Amino acid sequence: LRSAHPDHWMRAAAIRTLAMDAVQAANSGHPGMPMGMADVATVLFEKHLKFDASAPDWADRDRFILSAGHGSMLLYALLHLTGYASMTLEQIRNFRQWGSVTAGHPENFLAKGIETTTGPLGQGLANAVGFAIAEESLRAQFGPKIVDHRTWVIAGDGCLMEGISHEAIGLAGMQKLSKLIVLWDNNNISIDGKISLSDVTDQRARFAAAGWRVLSCNGHDPADIDRALTEAKTSDRPVFVDCKTHIGFGSPKKQDTAGAHGSPLGPDEIEVTKEIYGWPHPAFEIPATIREAWAAIGARGGKARAEWGARVAELSGAKRAEFERRMSGEAPKKLAATIRALKKQNAEAQPKVATRKASEMVLEVVNPVMPETIGGSADLTGSNNTKTGDLGVFDPENRKGRYIHFGIREHGMAGAMNGMALHGGIRPYGGTFLCFTDYARGAMRLSALMGVPAVYVMTHDSIGLGEDGPTHQPVEHLAICRATPNTLTFRPADLIETAEAWELALTSDKTPSVLALSRQNLPTVRTKHATKNLSAQGAYILREAEAKRRVILLATGSEVEIALAARDILEAEDIGTRVVSMPCMELFAAQPDGYRKRVLPGGPVRVAVEAAVRQPWDRWLLGERGREAKSGFVGMDSFGASAPAGRLYEEFGITADAVAEKVRSLL
Amino acid sequence: LRSAHPDHWMRAAAIRTLAMDAVQAANSGHPGMPMGMADVATVLFEKHLKFDASAPDWADRDRFILSAGHGSMLLYALLHLTGYASMTLEQIRNFRQWGSVTAGHPENFLAKGIETTTGPLGQGLANAVGFAIAEESLRAQFGPKIVDHRTWVIAGDGCLMEGISHEAIGLAGMQKLSKLIVLWDNNNISIDGKISLSDVTDQRARFAAAGWRVLSCNGHDPADIDRALTEAKTSDRPVFVDCKTHIGFGSPKKQDTAGAHGSPLGPDEIEVTKEIYGWPHPAFEIPATIREAWAAIGARGGKARAEWGARVAELSGAKRAEFERRMSGEAPKKLAATIRALKKQNAEAQPKVATRKASEMVLEVVNPVMPETIGGSADLTGSNNTKTGDLGVFDPENRKGRYIHFGIREHGMAGAMNGMALHGGIRPYGGTFLCFTDYARGAMRLSALMGVPAVYVMTHDSIGLGEDGPTHQPVEHLAICRATPNTLTFRPADLIETAEAWELALTSDKTPSVLALSRQNLPTVRTKHATKNLSAQGAYILREAEAKRRVILLATGSEVEIALAARDILEAEDIGTRVVSMPCMELFAAQPDGYRKRVLPGGPVRVAVEAAVRQPWDRWLLGERGREAKSGFVGMDSFGASAPAGRLYEEFGITADAVAEKVRSLL
Repeated sequence: LRSAHPDHWMRAAAIRTLAMDAVQAANSGHPGMPMGMADVATVLFEKHLKFDASAPDWADRDRFILSAGHGSMLLYALLHLTGYASMTLEQIRNFRQWGSVTAGHPENFLAKGIETTTGPLGQGLANAVGFAIAEESLRAQFGPKIVDHRTWVIAGDGCLMEGISHEAIGLAGMQKLSKLIVLWDNNNISIDGKISLSDVTDQRARFAAAGWRVLSCNGHDPADIDRALTEAKTSDRPVFVDCKTHIGFGSPKKQDTAGAHGSPLGPDEIEVTKEIYGWPHPAFEIPATIREAWAAIGARGGKARAEWGARVAELSGAKRAEFERRMSGEAPKKLAATIRALKKQNAEAQPKVATRKASEMVLEVVNPVMPETIGGSADLTGSNNTKTGDLGVFDPENRKGRYIHFGIREHGMAGAMNGMALHGGIRPYGGTFLCFTDYARGAMRLSALMGVPAVYVMTHDSIGLGEDGPTHQPVEHLAICRATPNTLTFRPADLIETAEAWELALTSDKTPSVLALSRQNLPTVRTKHATKNLSAQGAYILREAEAKRRVILLATGSEVEIALAARDILEAEDIGTRVVSMPCMELFAAQPDGYRKRVLPGGPVRVAVEAAVRQPWDRWLLGERGREAKSGFVGMDSFGASAPAGRLYEEFGITADAVAEKVRSLL
Repeated sequence: LRSAHPDHWMRAAAIRTLAMDAVQAANSGHPGMPMGMADVATVLFEKHLKFDASAPDWADRDRFILSAGHGSMLLYALLHLTGYASMTLEQIRNFRQWGSVTAGHPENFLAKGIETTTGPLGQGLANAVGFAIAEESLRAQFGPKIVDHRTWVIAGDGCLMEGISHEAIGLAGMQKLSKLIVLWDNNNISIDGKISLSDVTDQRARFAAAGWRVLSCNGHDPADIDRALTEAKTSDRPVFVDCKTHIGFGSPKKQDTAGAHGSPLGPDEIEVTKEIYGWPHPAFEIPATIREAWAAIGARGGKARAEWGARVAELSGAKRAEFERRMSGEAPKKLAATIRALKKQNAEAQPKVATRKASEMVLEVVNPVMPETIGGSADLTGSNNTKTGDLGVFDPENRKGRYIHFGIREHGMAGAMNGMALHGGIRPYGGTFLCFTDYARGAMRLSALMGVPAVYVMTHDSIGLGEDGPTHQPVEHLAICRATPNTLTFRPADLIETAEAWELALTSDKTPSVLALSRQNLPTVRTKHATKNLSAQGAYILREAEAKRRVILLATGSEVEIALAARDILEAEDIGTRVVSMPCMELFAAQPDGYRKRVLPGGPVRVAVEAAVRQPWDRWLLGERGREAKSGFVGMDSFGASAPAGRLYEEFGITADAVAEKVRSLL
C-alpha cells in the first residue's frame, strides 16, 4: 500500500506519528485508534469532507464527529495538520496537560473544529443523529442553497456495543437520514482483548436491519476508501461503512492487540514503527512537503465557502437576519412579551392544571414565535404534553415538521438533542417521565459538561404519578439533577412559574434545563401578576406571614400547594408563616447574599416540603442561617408505592397537617 | 380460532377478562397487552413452563419474566388462575391500590411468582440474561439433575427499542444462552401510536445478527404457538420468537390501537368485548370449569418437583448443604475469618496501593472461599481489577468460569447482575468507571428498589483519574448513589477499609453496594489492626487530636490521606485535630445518636474533604450539631479537567494546605 499510494501514505503517517508522539509525551492516551483510522480520515478530509480550516464556524460545513473519542489524537492531528488556528503544535505537545485544548477526550468547548464532546462511548453517534436531523430541518426551512451538508462519524466497537447506539441507529434508520455516514473502525479489539470475548454481533446485518445502507472497504487502501465514501454520498438512507482496519497499524509488536489501545507504545516501539512508515523525523516534526499537502487540504473548502457566502448574501435581509439569529442561538425578541402576556392572562384566569399541561400551554404560545424549537418525547407524547398544534411531525415525508416521535429511546433522544443544539439553529426539547432521566443520564451529563441549552421536559415528577408505582416514581432524581454541575433544575408550582421556567430555559446560553412537572392538577399559586420573572431568582417569597413571622415554609412544584395549606392552618393558630417557593435552587444559590438573606432570614423555624429525598435541602434548612434544632423536612426517604396519588401523599405523610405538625414540634 | 380451540379460548379469555376488569376497577392500567398476549401465555403455562404454583420457591423452576411490565395484569391473572397462594382474587380486585401485592408494575418483593421488578422497559430482558447465566453456571457446578431450567421472557416493542435490549441480546448471543427464550409481543403499537412513527427495525434480522435463533408464530393460534415453543426448546442458541399479536385482542373499538395500551376500555367496550369472547360472566367471575382447568395447569409441575426433590435428597450431605446455602444467599462462614486475616496482615504490611488494586487483593482471597461470586467488567478488566486468578472465564466453552467479559455494556451488565442475584445461588459483582454509573443507572436503581445485593465495583472515582478528563471524572456520582434509597455507597480509604466494605457488601441481604475506588495509589491509613469491622459504623475516629481538640476533619477514600496531612499541619500549629474517616454515610446515619455524637460532637470546627460535590455533606457539616459559621468543605463544584491527577488536585484546591487554610479561616 505504501508503494501504491506514497503521498497518501506519508500524509497518513503524519497523523500516526503525531498520535504516537503525543501519547508518548503525555505517557497517557490511546495511540492505536488514530494509527488504525489514519487512512480513512486522510481520505475523508482530503476528498470528501466539506470544510475550511480557516472558517471553523462556517454554518454549512460538513460535521465530523469522532464518536470513538479516546482516539482524540486523530482529531487533534487532523485539525493541526489542516491548519485550524487554535490547534498549534504546542497544543499537540501538551496533549492531556493542564490548560491545553488537547484534552484526553475531545471537548467541544476547548477548540474550534471539535464539534462535540466524546469519550463516553456511543454519545457521538447519537449526537450525529441530532446533527443530521438539524441539517434536514434547516435545509427544509432555509433551502439547500444555504443548508446542505453531511454528518460524518467515526465509531468504534465500543460505540456500537453501547445501548445508546441501538437507539441512535434505530431513530436514524426510521428517519432516513441519508446525509449521515458512519465509518466503523472495525479493528476487532477492545480494552479487554478480542471483540469475540464479549460479542459476536454481525454489525453489518444489524445496521441493515435498522434501515441503513451498508458498505465496506479496506480501511487502509485509500482507493478503496475513496470508492466507499463516494458511494456513501449517493444513498437515500443513512450509511454504515465497515472499514476493516488494524489497531496500532504498523507497530510490529502492538498492531492488532489490546496493547495498542490505551497505552503509549514506548520509545523503542515508536522508533521501529516509524522506520516501517519510512518516517525518519524526530518526534512532533512534520516535513514541509507534507505540511503543505495538508495545508492545501485545509484550504480546499475555501471556494465552496465563498460561493455559499455569496448565496447567503443574496437572501433577503429579513431571511438572512433570521438565519443568522438562528445560528447564533439568540432567542427571538417576541419571546419575552409572549411569556409576559401568558403570565398576565393566567394570573387572572388562575387555571387549575397539572404543570405538564401548563408546559403545553406555554409551548402552544412559544412554538409559533420560536421556529427554532424542535420538540419530542420518548413515546410519551400524550403524557409529557410536548406536542403543540402547529409543530407538524418531522419525518422523511415532512422535514418541516418540528415534532419528533423519538420512540422508546430516552438516551438516544437526549444524545440527539445535544447534537441538534450543537449543530446550531435548533433549540431542542424532549420529554419523558422524570424517573427515566435514569435512562438518559449519560447524555444529560454531557449537555451540562458541553454547555448545551437543551430542555428536558420531565413529567410525572413524584409519587403524584400514582398507580404506576415505584418503578415510575422519582424520589432521588431531583437530587441527581441538582448535584450535576451546570444544570438548572426547575420544579414550577403552577402555570405562571412554568412559563417563567420555560423562558429561562429557552434563553439559556450554556446551561441545560430540567423541567420537573406534575402529573396531577395544581392550583395557580401566583395569583398576582408580576412582569418580572420571579423564578429567575430561584426562590422568592410567595406569601408573607400575617401574624408575627415565626415560620418559613419552603416548597417546590406540587408541594407549594401543601405549604400554602399548612400556612393557613398555622396562621389560624396565630403562627405567622411565610411561604417561599423555590422553583430553582441553582438560581437561588447564585443570588447575592442580601437577597438570599431577605428570603431566608435567620430565626424562624424552617420546614421544607418536597416529595423527594432531603439531600439537596440540607443546605437551605441547616445552612443559610438555618439551625438544626429549628428546621425540619417533610418528604420521602424511601421509594414510593403503587396507589392513587392522594392516598400516597397521605400514607407517606406529605400533607398540610404533617407540615403544620412538624412546625409545631419545632416552635 | 375460538371454534377450533374452544377450551384454550376460554382459558385465555379468563386472563383477558380479569385484565379488563381489574384495569377498569382501578381506572388505571394497561389492558391491551394482557389481552394480546393471553394466548401465548396460556400455551406457555399449560404446556411448556416448568413450575408448581404450590412451590413458588422451587429452585429448579423455569423463570418467567414479564419484561413488558406494564402488562402486569397478565402476570397477576396467571398467578391467580394457576393458584399461587398470595395472588387471591381480592388482590386482583385491588389492582394498583395501596397495600395490595398487585402494583401497577410487577414488584418482585410483593408476591411469590414475580421473579423480578419490571416496568422500566428492557430491564426484564436484561435480567433474563442474568437468570440464564446463573442457570448455566449453577448447572455446571451442581449438575443437570439439580439445575436444569429455562428462562422465558415476554418483551414488547418498548423493551426492544430501549438501548439496554441491545446490550442484553448481544451478551446473550455471544454467550449462546440456549435456555433463554424471548417471546416478542409483536403488536405494532406503542403509546404514541403505530411503531412506524418511530421505528422501522427488522427485529427478526436484528436478533439473528446478534447470534440468536429466530422463530415466528401466530400469537393467537394455540397450535402454532405450541409448535414454536416446542421448537424453541431445541435450540443451541438463545431464541427469539416473533409472536404476531393484536393489542387489545377482541375489543371492537380498541384492538390494534394505542387506545388499548394504557387506559381502561370503559364499561361499554368491556361488555361488547366479553360478548365477543363468549363470556357472559360478571366482572372478576371465573366459571368453575375454567378455574379447574387452570388449577390443573398450576399443579402440573408437582410431579417434576417431587422427582427433583428426590434427586436433591440423593446428594451427599455436604453438597446438599452447600446447594441450600447457595440458594439461601447466606455467606460462607469462612468469609469473616478470611477478611480478618487479610486486614491483620495488611495493617502490618501497610501497602500503598490504589483501592481498586486493594479491591483485587480482597477478591483474590474472597473468591476462593465464595464460589457463589461471579465477577465481571464492562470492558475495563485491567482498570477495575475485577478478575482474580482462580475465576476462569465464563463462556460457552467454560460454564464453570466465574468471570464475565460483559463488553462495553454497563447497563446490560447491571441488568444481568440483577437477574443473577434474583435467580439465587450467585453473588454478582461488576465493574466500570464510577462516572459510567450514568450508563447503568436504570438497572442500579432497580437493584435498590428490588433489594438485590449486587456489588458495583466503580473505580477511577474522582478527578484522581487524571488525563482522561472531565467526561470520565465523576463529581456528582457519589451524591447520586447516596441520594438513592437502599443503596450503600462505600468509599474506602485504604486496603483495610476496602476489605471491610467488601465484607459488608458480600453479607448484605437486601441492599446493593457501590464501591467507589481510586485509580491512584493511597497509603494504608488504618495501621492499627481492629478485629471489628469499623466501616460497619459508616464513620469512625481514625486519628484523635493530640492538642486540645478544636477541629474535626471528615473525609472519604483518597481524601483521607489529605485530611491526615492537614491534621499534621494543624497539630504542628498546636491546633488539635480529629480525623474522621467516613467510608459509608448510609451506615453512619443508621448508627445510634450516641455513637454519632461521639464521632461528631458539637463545638469543633468541621471541614469535610471529598473530591466531589458538596450536596451529601451538608447534613454532616451543618447538621449533627454542626454550625454554618464553623464548617467548611473542600471539594469540587464544577466538572474536572484533563491533566495528571496531582496537578488537578492542586488546581482544584483539594490539598492539605487548602484544608488547613480553610480550618484556620473558621477558627
